[in-house]
Amino acid sequence: MRKIAVMEDFLTPERRKKVLDTAEKCGFAVDFYGRGAAPAQGLEQYEIIYGWCNPQDLKRATGLKWYCCGFAGVDQLSDDSLYASPDVVLSNSSGAYGLTISEHILMVTLMLLRRMPEFQDIVRRREWVSELPMRSIYGSRITVLGAGDIGTNFARRAKALGAGHICGVSRSGRNPDPAYDRMLPQEQLDQVLPETEILVMALPSVADTVGILSRERIALLPRDAIVVNVGRGTAIDQEALMEALNAGRIAGAALDVVVPEPLPREHPLWSTRNLLLTPHISGNMSLGYTCDINVDMFCRDLENYAAGRPLEHRVDRKRGY
Amino acid sequence: MRKIAVMEDFLTPERRKKVLDTAEKCGFAVDFYGRGAAPAQGLEQYEIIYGWCNPQDLKRATGLKWYCCGFAGVDQLSDDSLYASPDVVLSNSSGAYGLTISEHILMVTLMLLRRMPEFQDIVRRREWVSELPMRSIYGSRITVLGAGDIGTNFARRAKALGAGHICGVSRSGRNPDPAYDRMLPQEQLDQVLPETEILVMALPSVADTVGILSRERIALLPRDAIVVNVGRGTAIDQEALMEALNAGRIAGAALDVVVPEPLPREHPLWSTRNLLLTPHISGNMSLGYTCDINVDMFCRDLENYAAGRPLEHRVDRKRGY
Repeated sequence: MRKIAVMEDFLTPERRKKVLDTAEKCGFAVDFYGRGAAPAQGLEQYEIIYGWCNPQDLKRATGLKWYCCGFAGVDQLSDDSLYASPDVVLSNSSGAYGLTISEHILMVTLMLLRRMPEFQDIVRRREWVSELPMRSIYGSRITVLGAGDIGTNFARRAKALGAGHICGVSRSGRNPDPAYDRMLPQEQLDQVLPETEILVMALPSVADTVGILSRERIALLPRDAIVVNVGRGTAIDQEALMEALNAGRIAGAALDVVVPEPLPREHPLWSTRNLLLTPHISGNMSLGYTCDINVDMFCRDLENYAAGRPLEHRVDRKRGY
Repeated sequence: MRKIAVMEDFLTPERRKKVLDTAEKCGFAVDFYGRGAAPAQGLEQYEIIYGWCNPQDLKRATGLKWYCCGFAGVDQLSDDSLYASPDVVLSNSSGAYGLTISEHILMVTLMLLRRMPEFQDIVRRREWVSELPMRSIYGSRITVLGAGDIGTNFARRAKALGAGHICGVSRSGRNPDPAYDRMLPQEQLDQVLPETEILVMALPSVADTVGILSRERIALLPRDAIVVNVGRGTAIDQEALMEALNAGRIAGAALDVVVPEPLPREHPLWSTRNLLLTPHISGNMSLGYTCDINVDMFCRDLENYAAGRPLEHRVDRKRGY
């Protein structure tokens, strides 16, 4: 019988049943493993892997035809040489994270605009100070760099909260979502940075996004700008960002992704001024909704796969997303 | 000439001009003082005071006919005996704070649901842990106790973020705002508490709101409930709330208002578990928008006053709001 290996930790009995029912309907048997916990032997029997399989284990999956990664970012999985065959189809779970990551972006943006880390320090000292200047999402000028599922989910929420102007920036510069007041192609990013108060970065790590927020572009941001990154740490010249923050040349930043991860204890990012650092939690899979959508998307694509239809979430490995 | 005393710190040249132009049109001259900085002599010459006049100074304002308080909460100003005459009209600035306070509520709610204080502790220890269970505003059951300007501004934002069910609770149980899925009168509060995941309190301090979140009602909340209070500290049995938090009987609380303020250094609230404490900052006047609206509302009511029309923001001193 054709076989699927599921390697994920969030498979509650309900989600397990949903996978099993869909697999049975499509003529597959399923074995369940933990996230990243590929069995030491027998990986060659699986035609499909869903969840997270460590890249170094993939080569042993000699029967693999489709790997559905449970994450949205698949930069570690794009290299053809990881696979036993170059024909392995890769799909991701982009679409499952827009909700939770957009709530993270909203939270850290409000924390920075409303000076929350400083108020938390004040409270830690048991002092009662209430007069630090604050700002609002209402009326603010926002640039969303990477106008995919995550960026657009945030743009819709910011719009609903009364953001003054939202500019989306994507490779093509096209995106029909009405949350954006304006769309720009990536090569015109420089023109919008000087008027950006909130720069939200939700980019995959691919050749032309690595280092996209360069030292020169950081210098184009106004003094009251804040930068939020939830995509990949490689998108930012981290050294230049730390310098700008420490010198007060921009108002603040919230980084959920950094280089490297985990961040070594002696790294200067830990003590950078006006930096709200989080340990890659924005897409935390503990949120039931995220996992439900994740499983739903896999099951839909499993039906597509079994019927010979194109996968909804197939990744172009050359493009990287 | 009839005279107005403005006692506020946020009077930028533009806002000052707006007040002066409106006053001139209405036949008034204006003197400007700082917030709470009533002049030692001559207070009797003012027919109108706008901003914040310390209650102990009001008695000297023997010519006072209208006091427009720049804050929304006027519990310190309701007592007739504060004034030289019981006929002094009191108005407040309810309506100026909905935007900024609703952004505060959103921020602290997300921080509690997403375990942000714990992640901040982890980051402070330079550790890299990403797997604490989180929750979302999306799909959550929210009760808004006090369905006025502030509560309703929050309800609209929560609705836009996909809240599952929003129940408003007000004295009358009436409120036409479509953000609420359901409205209840205050006396039926008990019936909605057991199914409340997020309890937002935005009540004025009046006789029947003092102690409204009693020990018995805290016991009705489910274990995963969080409580957010931005109204007045008196609305909660603080002792009972601290016990519930320390015992883990509810999931968390965010208090921007407490009893007393400022909180003494040795008070047990500072070290209560899962409590996000802020020093009464949610309605911080540093936000330009809040101050603009504040001045606009005063100027509109000044025109009403001069024309003999009823004031839009008149407070019923007996009712307290």
